[in-house]
Amino acid sequence: MNEPTLNPESGFLRFRIDFSYDGTNFSGWAKQRDQRTIQGEMESALEPLTRNPISLQVAGRTDAGVHASNQVAHFDLPERDHQANEWDLADITYRLNRMLTEEIRIHSISKAPSHFHARFSALSRSYIYKIADGGKLLPPLERYDTASWYRPLDIDAMNSAVKPLLGGHDFAAFCKARDTGTTIRTLHEFKFRREGNGFITVNVTADAFCHSMVRSLVGAAVCVGEGRFPQPWLKEVLDGKSRIGESMVFPSRGLTLIKVIYPSDDQLEERAKATIRRRDEDE
Amino acid sequence: MNEPTLNPESGFLRFRIDFSYDGTNFSGWAKQRDQRTIQGEMESALEPLTRNPISLQVAGRTDAGVHASNQVAHFDLPERDHQANEWDLADITYRLNRMLTEEIRIHSISKAPSHFHARFSALSRSYIYKIADGGKLLPPLERYDTASWYRPLDIDAMNSAVKPLLGGHDFAAFCKARDTGTTIRTLHEFKFRREGNGFITVNVTADAFCHSMVRSLVGAAVCVGEGRFPQPWLKEVLDGKSRIGESMVFPSRGLTLIKVIYPSDDQLEERAKATIRRRDEDE
Repeated sequence: MNEPTLNPESGFLRFRIDFSYDGTNFSGWAKQRDQRTIQGEMESALEPLTRNPISLQVAGRTDAGVHASNQVAHFDLPERDHQANEWDLADITYRLNRMLTEEIRIHSISKAPSHFHARFSALSRSYIYKIADGGKLLPPLERYDTASWYRPLDIDAMNSAVKPLLGGHDFAAFCKARDTGTTIRTLHEFKFRREGNGFITVNVTADAFCHSMVRSLVGAAVCVGEGRFPQPWLKEVLDGKSRIGESMVFPSRGLTLIKVIYPSDDQLEERAKATIRRRDEDE
Repeated sequence: MNEPTLNPESGFLRFRIDFSYDGTNFSGWAKQRDQRTIQGEMESALEPLTRNPISLQVAGRTDAGVHASNQVAHFDLPERDHQANEWDLADITYRLNRMLTEEIRIHSISKAPSHFHARFSALSRSYIYKIADGGKLLPPLERYDTASWYRPLDIDAMNSAVKPLLGGHDFAAFCKARDTGTTIRTLHEFKFRREGNGFITVNVTADAFCHSMVRSLVGAAVCVGEGRFPQPWLKEVLDGKSRIGESMVFPSRGLTLIKVIYPSDDQLEERAKATIRRRDEDE
């Protein structure tokens, strides 16, 4: 697929769609031939409803098995069709939810400013990662979004070790190699917390993430949390810029995109242009 | 299957097993020919591990699609085998979890007093039922244990209406007809609560439940909560003793057994005998 233009083509209107999904039985967000993907299911359902080809641009292009509780995308429709058909967005939302399985739920569809770009205008993405450590049993109904780790993890050690990673760095060591894009990112939050049920929740926020970056960060921090490496090791990995071992990358099932933040409407265009200048590749 | 004896046969030891399950893809607890059931899966996994035929007696015989976060069962094994094999119960638990899918998790297996009967010794069973009312979207990862209802429900109206049902009554109106057993039960708790996420949790506790009783109670209370019937209607239904319409019974997906309470060891036998005298049919 070609790189989308930043603004809608002339005569087109831009729409924002907010939604959530259980990624368990999908081959990720991005449409692929002969694969069941979230993008594929949503575009196929939207096209007959709007009687137009639909190309969704998403804020966080999640991998196979990754979930989202608050995902954002946009799409464009001809203004003339919109006027002629008097599209009722609440009605389209309702019908879309009837067509999709319960694995994907559409929260709302709304008219967006033409400078809104779900991917390039975003200021930050927030994920949570859930871990049942120390060989704790996974409650059957929580197995879809929690990963297991057999060793007990030291929350304080992990929280200390990840501090040097906060702020702007080249995260190449935690990014799956790709042809394009910078691996410089700004990490706003990386925090491990022991919940009341004994499981661990990890909160991770950055301006954007490169491919498999959250799962690589969590997996590397766990190496410290289980005592396999000392705390300074994480910063050494960051500075070394050579990709960590694939076996350290944590499984996708524990990962959920929970929030995408955008600037105020008058900042949308400037933000998108700045993002493209940096040639971000976000996950 | 024949009604089990209250105590283990001579030369047999009794074991208690605590476990949980996601009932979504099972035809309920009770073993049935050519059906995937929780009892069937657990007995098939336990038999090779203990090299003995296993017959599980459970506290709450849940229907197809009903879940359990804290279920209890018992089984008997020859004392001679136990001594000869020096069964390590923690090891059997571990191996059992490896053999079963993540849909069933074994919390523990322990040696039980010979008077312990998972079903007949129980003092009470507690269930929760989760409802997303008013047409609220079900978060995809919560769809397995939450039921949807399109109309908004009035929590206060339901809590007032169900008060006359507390205590000992003949719950025939809320029990699926069966050949055997009394329909007299003691309802200890029946409470609707609006959670922080906007969904409803219903807590229901009784000495025991007859078949489909929780789902019938919840469905009938919802008729009041949505304003279809006035509050006194629930008590009239109870007093009328004629079975409510099948369409009122709420779906099994929202129901989870969360707790079973037993008396102290010296009361186990007395409790079991009293239960059998009342010919309880519990769900």
